[in-house]
Amino acid sequence: MKAFNIVSLIRKKRDRQSLSPEEIRFLIQQYSKDEMPDYQMSAFLMATFLNGLDDDEAAALTYEMLHSGMVMDLSDVPGIKVDKHSTGGVGDKTSLILAPIVAACGVPVPMISGRGLGHSGGTLDKLESIPGFNVNLDLKRYVEVLKKHNLVLIGQTEEIAPADKRMYALRDVTATVECIPLIAGSIMSKKLAEGIDALVLDVKFGSGAFMKTREQALQLAERLVTIGEEFGKRTIAYLTGMEQPLGHNIGNWLEVRESIDCLNGGGPEDLLMVTHQLAGTMIYLGGEAASIEDGIKRSKESVQDGSAMQKFRDIVLEQDGSTEYLDHPDDYPAASHAFEVTADEDGFVGAIDAYAFGMGGLELGAGRVSKEDTIDPSAGIILRKKIGDKVKQGETIAECFTNKEVAADRVRQMLKDAVTVGPIRPEVPARITDKVTIDGATSWSAS
Amino acid sequence: MKAFNIVSLIRKKRDRQSLSPEEIRFLIQQYSKDEMPDYQMSAFLMATFLNGLDDDEAAALTYEMLHSGMVMDLSDVPGIKVDKHSTGGVGDKTSLILAPIVAACGVPVPMISGRGLGHSGGTLDKLESIPGFNVNLDLKRYVEVLKKHNLVLIGQTEEIAPADKRMYALRDVTATVECIPLIAGSIMSKKLAEGIDALVLDVKFGSGAFMKTREQALQLAERLVTIGEEFGKRTIAYLTGMEQPLGHNIGNWLEVRESIDCLNGGGPEDLLMVTHQLAGTMIYLGGEAASIEDGIKRSKESVQDGSAMQKFRDIVLEQDGSTEYLDHPDDYPAASHAFEVTADEDGFVGAIDAYAFGMGGLELGAGRVSKEDTIDPSAGIILRKKIGDKVKQGETIAECFTNKEVAADRVRQMLKDAVTVGPIRPEVPARITDKVTIDGATSWSAS
Repeated sequence: MKAFNIVSLIRKKRDRQSLSPEEIRFLIQQYSKDEMPDYQMSAFLMATFLNGLDDDEAAALTYEMLHSGMVMDLSDVPGIKVDKHSTGGVGDKTSLILAPIVAACGVPVPMISGRGLGHSGGTLDKLESIPGFNVNLDLKRYVEVLKKHNLVLIGQTEEIAPADKRMYALRDVTATVECIPLIAGSIMSKKLAEGIDALVLDVKFGSGAFMKTREQALQLAERLVTIGEEFGKRTIAYLTGMEQPLGHNIGNWLEVRESIDCLNGGGPEDLLMVTHQLAGTMIYLGGEAASIEDGIKRSKESVQDGSAMQKFRDIVLEQDGSTEYLDHPDDYPAASHAFEVTADEDGFVGAIDAYAFGMGGLELGAGRVSKEDTIDPSAGIILRKKIGDKVKQGETIAECFTNKEVAADRVRQMLKDAVTVGPIRPEVPARITDKVTIDGATSWSAS
Repeated sequence: MKAFNIVSLIRKKRDRQSLSPEEIRFLIQQYSKDEMPDYQMSAFLMATFLNGLDDDEAAALTYEMLHSGMVMDLSDVPGIKVDKHSTGGVGDKTSLILAPIVAACGVPVPMISGRGLGHSGGTLDKLESIPGFNVNLDLKRYVEVLKKHNLVLIGQTEEIAPADKRMYALRDVTATVECIPLIAGSIMSKKLAEGIDALVLDVKFGSGAFMKTREQALQLAERLVTIGEEFGKRTIAYLTGMEQPLGHNIGNWLEVRESIDCLNGGGPEDLLMVTHQLAGTMIYLGGEAASIEDGIKRSKESVQDGSAMQKFRDIVLEQDGSTEYLDHPDDYPAASHAFEVTADEDGFVGAIDAYAFGMGGLELGAGRVSKEDTIDPSAGIILRKKIGDKVKQGETIAECFTNKEVAADRVRQMLKDAVTVGPIRPEVPARITDKVTIDGATSWSAS
């Protein structure tokens, strides 16, 4: 490989010049080989944060992070392999519902997920609230389980994009996280390593998401789609608003439980709408539907005919989980403490600060404040009222569950402050606002 | 001390917000205590490089770097202590000449100097070309020698501004060197640690200096003066052009030799002009002249009456050096190889690329390519022609001296390419272009 001078490459990015693919390869490979120390990488990351990366640079960065580890070859698994990635939001449990739906419709879903981060939960933590469920399969088992069930649900292994793992940890401690090309490279290097053929992205924005505005989310979605298509993977992204939590339940088991409700034909409308849109798009990209609309139809049918719920039971059993609470959710061990948040006056719910509910869940034990924290699977919040709902004074807005001796009064007040009640019924904010493909973004309104 | 979150402070600078003095203190103190790792400091330095520091931030940074080590107390040394600092340029040997001049005029000069860096030489390396000269005095001896001679010439010790030393090394490997507030903080923290009362600065620009343009140099000069005055030290800066080398000689002993010529009443005009201007300003700030003009007069007198040369002899002897070659410069051991650069045609010297002459000197052995290199005191270049001088075809433009088996043809060609000869006599570029005080900058033309 051609050798470059690391300091000169940092200087180039500092001076707003573009780096060639060879130059980016050199940096990532030197970093992977410990021949570029953290202090040089962090200077490069800050220069990148402030001066950006163009499309070619972002693609090269993704390529190098991807190839810093193992890239799965799923070519001997029949079918078009499709996954979904969400940038994370409070109450977002769509993965748990759509993965078995899409697999039941005949599209293989090789899903490698992450853990919760701050106010936003993670699919792995949710799955582990099912007793025995094992997310730590090795890559040989990953392929076997996928072949057998069209579905596998595991966590990121050490072999997947190790350069991204190190760079992400470094970004976390050097204030270089919120950078669209770096976020895009990090997401796509991990997803492309799965061995997928196509990808659906759910880019969330609003107080309950990492991207606070629709504009930021749109930029990120466009980057993600561009990178995906450059790697030859059909990629479609949706922008979804997180001005309020998705569905009613926040917290690991509580979210699995709401997912089971959805797979059993129940569940809240907003959650179902987003889930079927994403699932229908995956089924379409997977070649099992002629259009996204047709995919949505198939998605709904798989719930009605019970095949999606059966797929979920199958994968839980295959990955060493118990189906006891899938069949009898009410028997799940309850948290030792429960308290309610009630309305102070009659009116309509006007706004729900999703971020505050995410942080509230964290305080109750549903997430980690530091990496070493253990998660309480039964902790969380059930939101009984959503934006536009009518409430009476004293009526329950939310129920809280915890095993910690938390300051209930403080959390109650925090959640109460996060919900406004007023005399006028507000418009319910749109969930899906935009659809982004390689041909561009289209403003989009759910039917 | 109040505790802050390091990542939040990096984020603030990243987002173009100003840090308070307490916040800057926290960062530098954590870094000094090894509680802020290099990778966080380098991210902060890159954010600072790209987003800048305001005057208050730069002053706070200087204060904290200064107080990371020992600050000399020279209050029991009688007189107003004045030093000079130059940002470095090819052939700049003014320190060697003005330090004994100013001391001979009754103003104490506590000079802590650096070594050569790249194309630019360093006072310490030049002094060490005098056999036996010891620049490594401890701080107790520093005060004793200063009291005895009004002069002391040493190198930076471990006790002086250690935070700056570490940050400078980190900047060097993270492409964050050429940043005016960081350069200003680095220079001033070291100079203020000397225990001075006033400071004269020589900010050089042009191909033979680190700052390539007058505008950059002006910005740096204004920062330096602002910081100096904020610390209660009278500070005056001059901008001097380095479009061609200063004086004739480049290389360690060659520069000492040219300095001796000046102290003995000879020497080239441009070097004498700059030296007397800087020395006169120091004598004025030191209270031994009523004006800078009067200071210049006293400076020249100290050369004429021999007191400056006597002071130089005294300090060489005090610091264990031999005066043999001061008295008999022609006896200095000659380099083993010598070759000449000659003119290809008749005409006038139009331009001399000082940077190329600096790099040429480096190749001959007068400087260090890496920190571990040893310096050859007799290596260097004597420039026989300067801009505006008439030359005839075949006439010597420069003489080169080295003990290395260098590719003479290559160096000769490199230096030849660095000098243009044309039919029209060019204007000689101004040496001192601006004077900067706390009241602002004034365009300045040497009489």
